[in-house]
Amino acid sequence: MGKMISEIKEQPAALERLLKGERRNIAGIADRIRKLDPAFLSLAARGSSDNAATFGKYLIECENGLTCSLAAPSVHTVYKKKIDMRRGVVIGVSQSGEGDDINETLRLARASGAYTVGITNTPGSAMAAVADDVILLRAGVEKGLAATKTYTCQLMAMMMLSASLAGDRALLAALDGVPDAVNETLAVESRVREITERYRYMERCVIIGRGFNYATVKEAALKLMETSYVVAQPFSTADFMHGPIAMTGAGFPAFVCAPSGRMAAPIRKLCGELRDKQLETVIASSNPATLKLASKAIRMPVDCGELVSPILYIVPFQFFANFLSVARGLDPDNPRFLKKVTKTL
Amino acid sequence: MGKMISEIKEQPAALERLLKGERRNIAGIADRIRKLDPAFLSLAARGSSDNAATFGKYLIECENGLTCSLAAPSVHTVYKKKIDMRRGVVIGVSQSGEGDDINETLRLARASGAYTVGITNTPGSAMAAVADDVILLRAGVEKGLAATKTYTCQLMAMMMLSASLAGDRALLAALDGVPDAVNETLAVESRVREITERYRYMERCVIIGRGFNYATVKEAALKLMETSYVVAQPFSTADFMHGPIAMTGAGFPAFVCAPSGRMAAPIRKLCGELRDKQLETVIASSNPATLKLASKAIRMPVDCGELVSPILYIVPFQFFANFLSVARGLDPDNPRFLKKVTKTL
Repeated sequence: MGKMISEIKEQPAALERLLKGERRNIAGIADRIRKLDPAFLSLAARGSSDNAATFGKYLIECENGLTCSLAAPSVHTVYKKKIDMRRGVVIGVSQSGEGDDINETLRLARASGAYTVGITNTPGSAMAAVADDVILLRAGVEKGLAATKTYTCQLMAMMMLSASLAGDRALLAALDGVPDAVNETLAVESRVREITERYRYMERCVIIGRGFNYATVKEAALKLMETSYVVAQPFSTADFMHGPIAMTGAGFPAFVCAPSGRMAAPIRKLCGELRDKQLETVIASSNPATLKLASKAIRMPVDCGELVSPILYIVPFQFFANFLSVARGLDPDNPRFLKKVTKTL
Repeated sequence: MGKMISEIKEQPAALERLLKGERRNIAGIADRIRKLDPAFLSLAARGSSDNAATFGKYLIECENGLTCSLAAPSVHTVYKKKIDMRRGVVIGVSQSGEGDDINETLRLARASGAYTVGITNTPGSAMAAVADDVILLRAGVEKGLAATKTYTCQLMAMMMLSASLAGDRALLAALDGVPDAVNETLAVESRVREITERYRYMERCVIIGRGFNYATVKEAALKLMETSYVVAQPFSTADFMHGPIAMTGAGFPAFVCAPSGRMAAPIRKLCGELRDKQLETVIASSNPATLKLASKAIRMPVDCGELVSPILYIVPFQFFANFLSVARGLDPDNPRFLKKVTKTL
């Protein structure tokens, strides 16, 4: 079995380890943040970790009522500017913990007086040394080039931190059910495998979601670009309707992430419009009415609420990227031009 | 002459009106922000205005040393969450001033205690009523569906505000030279027209820039998607090398925005790598060594510094989107599926 496919399936166990191993540490970090009463939080990341940070921004704003900024690391590392972050908390996210620009952002934030936290999978990494406190992902070594289990563990770590900070016991309890829910979701594998061949010659597509799942479509697009060389462009429904919809038309492939929750109605409306315009749609949802609008439906077997849904909804896209890569005669574990730890120019 | 092409050429006059008409008003707004000593700024926008806001984020962080967040309007309008913004300043950006979600974000920010500013082209708009203070773009009515002169005026308004806030007289003086510089830049029209036909059947491309010009490539991609139906995906050089480069290869079209300044060296290095991998590259630059690496070079006639460069570097892409649309038998003023004022679902 390939590394990527094997690590997709390791996700329930990895999430379980994280939940058990970091609860106490994360509660302590949340306490420290609460006492600081920061004016804002800032997340610094690149690649898949940046997609996880996109989720973190929605989560922190919605769940904690705090403005959350996504840092532009080049402000620090290329333009060498100092930002006053005394009144903020800065969280770096990196699977390897060796992204120089993220670590430099943390170092400068700490020097300006901010409390800093690192979220990484690598205990002895540079990030673990530079941040005030560290959350360990405990995903186990990730050998696949395309991040899978570290991505979902990053989402989980942010949910644990956000729920602890909000004192949201209902969410903390709900998180305990996530590893089992991901395990059930792995059952989409056969359906995804079945529909993949149809997209053997797809050269471009859009992937659409919104709110908490804007992160999911960004990450899904990145997996497709990395492993299958499709120009896959992610959009929030709002941005998509503001202009890019003009480039689509009959037969144009659109992948839609349609979980239950507040975004369900506007996304179902969008799916109807895409059908009227005769686009080719692949829709992941647990809602039968939404699935009926699809060219190819992927029925999600579990519905555990919109906030937690990004952990479940990335799974069909991880499978899809893996199988499409194989269908194209490529190796998802060895994309051309890439290395596991990317140094930013 | 079409509306889009005519409005591209109106940009020097529009920028001149804005510089003269809003200097005093903007200085007053900057004074008010300075006295508030905010912990952060937040920008709320959609579409082209959101691309201008992307520039604003870099500008405010680099020039003013303040953390700047890009608001996710759906946090307020769909999830109905309250964010504590007392210690921040919130700036809405909308050409029409009628984006419901942006106005709702401003209203809630103001209710939570934040000072709010609207940047709009429409004096009697809902935005002008909801914000504490307003900056008027003075671009004149924009009839083209694809925003051009309102976009560059938004960049200029943000530079005027940022320079006033920083008390940066050198930058304020430099801004006075920008309308003439844009006027000189309009001379790229003939070169852009000359190379456009080559891309008649291009279905997908990437557009790469970084730092202040990450906004430029986002906006360039949006113009191409709207008017020419190309799947044009914008990337910062850093993100591009982190994964998406895998999907390229010989003949893959990459457009590169390569102004002088701190990003010039890493971007020239990237251009060399793209050439080694035999991509098709269209490079806009004033640097002869960088232009030599291009499949098709667009020599920028003026170099007025990296910070101001986004106003100049969007111009060749505006021309390109317009001419490519025409070459494809489309009408850049009437993209399918779009209306000028987009209501967010």
